[in-house]
Amino acid sequence: MKRGCKYGTHRVIEPKEVLPQPAVKVCNDMNIFDNEILIDVQALNIDSASFTQIEEECEGDIEKIKEKILEIVNNKGKMQNPVTGSGGMLIGRIEKIGNTLKDKTNLKIGDKIATLVSLSLTPLKIDEIIDIKPDIDRVEIKGKAVLFESGIYATLPEDMEETLALAALDVAGAPAQTRKLVKKGETVLVLGAAGKSGMLCCYEAKKKVGKNGKVIGLIRNEKSRDFLNYTGFCNEIIVADAQKPTQVLNEVLRVNEGKEVDIAINCVNVENTEMSSILPVRDEGIVYFFSMATSFTKAALGAEGVGKDVTMIIGNGYTKNHAEITLEDLRECDTLRKIFEDLYV
Amino acid sequence: MKRGCKYGTHRVIEPKEVLPQPAVKVCNDMNIFDNEILIDVQALNIDSASFTQIEEECEGDIEKIKEKILEIVNNKGKMQNPVTGSGGMLIGRIEKIGNTLKDKTNLKIGDKIATLVSLSLTPLKIDEIIDIKPDIDRVEIKGKAVLFESGIYATLPEDMEETLALAALDVAGAPAQTRKLVKKGETVLVLGAAGKSGMLCCYEAKKKVGKNGKVIGLIRNEKSRDFLNYTGFCNEIIVADAQKPTQVLNEVLRVNEGKEVDIAINCVNVENTEMSSILPVRDEGIVYFFSMATSFTKAALGAEGVGKDVTMIIGNGYTKNHAEITLEDLRECDTLRKIFEDLYV
Repeated sequence: MKRGCKYGTHRVIEPKEVLPQPAVKVCNDMNIFDNEILIDVQALNIDSASFTQIEEECEGDIEKIKEKILEIVNNKGKMQNPVTGSGGMLIGRIEKIGNTLKDKTNLKIGDKIATLVSLSLTPLKIDEIIDIKPDIDRVEIKGKAVLFESGIYATLPEDMEETLALAALDVAGAPAQTRKLVKKGETVLVLGAAGKSGMLCCYEAKKKVGKNGKVIGLIRNEKSRDFLNYTGFCNEIIVADAQKPTQVLNEVLRVNEGKEVDIAINCVNVENTEMSSILPVRDEGIVYFFSMATSFTKAALGAEGVGKDVTMIIGNGYTKNHAEITLEDLRECDTLRKIFEDLYV
Repeated sequence: MKRGCKYGTHRVIEPKEVLPQPAVKVCNDMNIFDNEILIDVQALNIDSASFTQIEEECEGDIEKIKEKILEIVNNKGKMQNPVTGSGGMLIGRIEKIGNTLKDKTNLKIGDKIATLVSLSLTPLKIDEIIDIKPDIDRVEIKGKAVLFESGIYATLPEDMEETLALAALDVAGAPAQTRKLVKKGETVLVLGAAGKSGMLCCYEAKKKVGKNGKVIGLIRNEKSRDFLNYTGFCNEIIVADAQKPTQVLNEVLRVNEGKEVDIAINCVNVENTEMSSILPVRDEGIVYFFSMATSFTKAALGAEGVGKDVTMIIGNGYTKNHAEITLEDLRECDTLRKIFEDLYV
């Protein structure tokens, strides 16, 4: 009988008495505790901010990216990018269920699941990297991982390819939070509207705002305009550099009769886009940061600096039923499913 | 006629096209534009996280702290700590009002004001550091600063000492946000309850929760217990290390009949306290981060990692009437005023 902490603190090597996510190093010994689950891992979906950072550092060289990923996992016992702090998720089959969990879960040996907790806290051991697909931030591996008692997961659905489900589940927090936040008749600005989470947010926002509301999608280049237009998820599309807040503000005002928006949702995976999300929002509006490249101090001090009384929310990767909501989006919208199949699978 | 951007972008030296807060360097030339205000600065109140970091780096040596502050301001044109990213506020007298602002403001030459925008975006030139008071994070200087058109400020009140008003205005966002967030009957956990902003949050929370609610104050050492007890702002006081989330969780459950709290307010100015704020909060509860040492990714991924469906808010240093609310607290509560006079003046 070897029972660990529900939250996985028994695996933390350093520093002492912290949780696995902030830990610098966790134990990736694959002899599981009685309240852990062992996963035979097939693929990692690296968080977009993390993958972009590694890709840039390695100048796009696949072999260097492989080395970098192995180096991180060997050093930290988990795939947590030391620069961005972020992780991603994984897909695999249940290999072993700890004794005390057997009666508490519906999982069976061999079930295919996706973990919905971040790789940044999941003990991982990579035996071999088989392939890297940089266009979908995916790393196919031979390896094992451990799911803690508090760890959330989704059993992969029968009615869609696993790569499709995984691609969507990776950003499941964003559309589910959007559904909760946005109200009928509101005007919503989505920054990074043509990206994976941005597109899902636009879709959910469009459903929620209804006929009298408006979804404004911000994209970086003209070349994404046709694509975003084709989805039909935005009422207005604007092109601006999200790192240039006054440019963004002016474009928003131009397409919104000179008015500020009610809600801004930031899905841009580069740094220094906090103010572009804050400036266009009306007093007492909401700014929802889903991007892992967000800086807490830049947002807090930035809003104060321009005297903006807005509520700024840290995008929580988890909210109730987020997996179901996101998979439902793919089922009910053929356009969305087709795009996901084309771009992320 | 020399009119600058309302938000001060005309002063940004690098990188191009960003706002003054994220800028690495701003222009601190003291020939003001027509929509700027020149301030003859008397003192800086450095943000607590920033001052603590500088103090530790300089091993508490006052001369080294002086050098460090001068180095930062000479390099960046503003007093923004390069490690924490945070600033603070300043006090001074109006020296000159730009032509286009003369009709828009009630300010007169010679008025004593406190800026309510962060030092992290305020062009500043220090001629001389006169004194440093490390116990109140205060730096007395000879120097000048520039307030942009969008910059908020408070004229210092007649019925209290300027140092008292300044000490309170420095953290005005926290109590004002607490007043907005907390509802009757709720249970509120304040981390860092014996600190300046923590104490104000406890005071506001206690007023709002009423008889059937509860305020739990978390402090680091037993030695603060008598002090916090004396204030009467908390129903329960717990002693725990905010960097140890499981310890914090257990203490909260112990004094709250095994239940999680509705709201946690983080006012701890050290790193790695995100999870201690998240773990004790009930599903669909609120975590309000006022600490500038908060990491966005640690909060976002941390909540996901433990499957907590909580709303996490980035403490906005500004909210409507925050200066008035905070000064009102000092006026209506003698205990609070006395403590502020004893500790922060």
